[in-house]
Amino acid sequence: MIAVLSGGVGAARLLLALEDVLDPSEVTAVVNVGDDLVLHGLTICPDLDTITYTLARLNNDELGWGLRGESWRVMDELDALGGQAWFRLGDRDLATHLYRSQRLAEGATKAEVAEELARHHGVAQRLLPVTNDLVSTVFHTTTGVLSFQDYFVRHHHSIPVTSIDIEGAAAARPAPGVLDVLREAERIVIAPSNPLISIDPILQIPGVRDILRQRRDAVIAVSPIINGAAIKGPADRLLLELGHDVSCVGVAQFYREVCGTFVMDVTDANLAEAISNFDMKVRITTTIMSNPEHARALAREVLA
Amino acid sequence: MIAVLSGGVGAARLLLALEDVLDPSEVTAVVNVGDDLVLHGLTICPDLDTITYTLARLNNDELGWGLRGESWRVMDELDALGGQAWFRLGDRDLATHLYRSQRLAEGATKAEVAEELARHHGVAQRLLPVTNDLVSTVFHTTTGVLSFQDYFVRHHHSIPVTSIDIEGAAAARPAPGVLDVLREAERIVIAPSNPLISIDPILQIPGVRDILRQRRDAVIAVSPIINGAAIKGPADRLLLELGHDVSCVGVAQFYREVCGTFVMDVTDANLAEAISNFDMKVRITTTIMSNPEHARALAREVLA
Repeated sequence: MIAVLSGGVGAARLLLALEDVLDPSEVTAVVNVGDDLVLHGLTICPDLDTITYTLARLNNDELGWGLRGESWRVMDELDALGGQAWFRLGDRDLATHLYRSQRLAEGATKAEVAEELARHHGVAQRLLPVTNDLVSTVFHTTTGVLSFQDYFVRHHHSIPVTSIDIEGAAAARPAPGVLDVLREAERIVIAPSNPLISIDPILQIPGVRDILRQRRDAVIAVSPIINGAAIKGPADRLLLELGHDVSCVGVAQFYREVCGTFVMDVTDANLAEAISNFDMKVRITTTIMSNPEHARALAREVLA
Repeated sequence: MIAVLSGGVGAARLLLALEDVLDPSEVTAVVNVGDDLVLHGLTICPDLDTITYTLARLNNDELGWGLRGESWRVMDELDALGGQAWFRLGDRDLATHLYRSQRLAEGATKAEVAEELARHHGVAQRLLPVTNDLVSTVFHTTTGVLSFQDYFVRHHHSIPVTSIDIEGAAAARPAPGVLDVLREAERIVIAPSNPLISIDPILQIPGVRDILRQRRDAVIAVSPIINGAAIKGPADRLLLELGHDVSCVGVAQFYREVCGTFVMDVTDANLAEAISNFDMKVRITTTIMSNPEHARALAREVLA
């Protein structure tokens, strides 16, 4: 069994590619919940939903998020009412959030709801939120403290960040099964997600970092930084603002304590030696999943 | 200024007719919130919404509830997910509930949200929920305790009721302005709404009944029962099950303490004497608002 520490889009692509090279029932995604939010009374889990939709082959490739064949009747009406329409929730997508919110109100856990939604959509991989407890990634910025989606969506991650807090992480309990999965997995893959805001909120849940440290030789991370730039999102910018090296070396350094093998892009081959100095094995391949063939090759590489 | 104690559809029709015979800014609807619910994380206020939509001329006449030009994308998806789709929330209607839920989460009161929605829709009458506090009408039935919408919508008000509780009413505070409106109104109209589940949850809010008792001569009620049957909904059935006379006499008796004038339908003229015995003035007219002309005539009658 393979465990994959997962953020949103980058992780979803890798998980999808893994289905081509491994029985999906052999894969458990341990998913970040630090960017979950409650908006309009609805509990929204962007990373879980992105993965579910992607593995269900329902993801919207044009938008890069959400569901295909989406419509926007509710958002258009909400916008007309003067409501908060900056976080775009399509009509189909809203059904997911209504379903989750009602199930949570009935006493189900986030993990149970994730499993129900995955099952409904025919997703064969196991999707486990890292915790059922409330964990909130918040950004201290030059204009004050911002919630994740305020920073990310409302302000298009364009405001300088001075520090990041994963509120609630220290007191959160891992969701049932998470630590067992991490203990028992043949390999633990750190997906090419944002290290600071997708993976760190997973590592900060009590027990997770300790297990990875103990199992460092079984942990393999894929760099989300290629040639000094993030494939998507603000990882490069955040690395810079928070004093890390803006390269795959900066990412490897961030993971050095918990990860024994690092997968970097061929473009960055000249940086391999710097990463070897962290006592990491280095694998060099094409890490950008620009087509299914490259994605499959990357999936094979993390399993090799 | 005229105050109108209001439930949903029947009250909305009377309020609409009042606009033809009185400057709308002279009317304040004091609205029941006992059938409000939280579903899918959303706070839904059926009576406030029915009145707002009706006065905005946006009500769906075909369905008898909700908004015209409605679509059902979210509900269809929710239904497919196996979610609770029995309480039909249209896409346009959902925007109202998202808006309200978010504003409540931000600290606005139900009354403030009602005013914002009314203003957005160009409603000139003042709409005041009787309280901003949580009040829940619950039904004790032969099959156990049911929430309002469980009884009303899910079970189509088809289960025998043994008693009704307005939970939270005794501890609820009237919304700001409610008692002032009732003290100062030239006339207080009790709309032809269900006495037991639309009007009683208003009367049970501390202070309301006392003021009406003191101002009994200014209070005029319109019977929602004609010829022993409710115009709409289970008022007749509930009157029977809870030991009241199933006629406008039963309604008048229910209101006798707080109401000095009773408007009954011509069909029931033979019952006028029985109602006079409650020390009530009786007015006989066409109370069914089957067309705008009849509705206007009724509106004139309650103002006369």
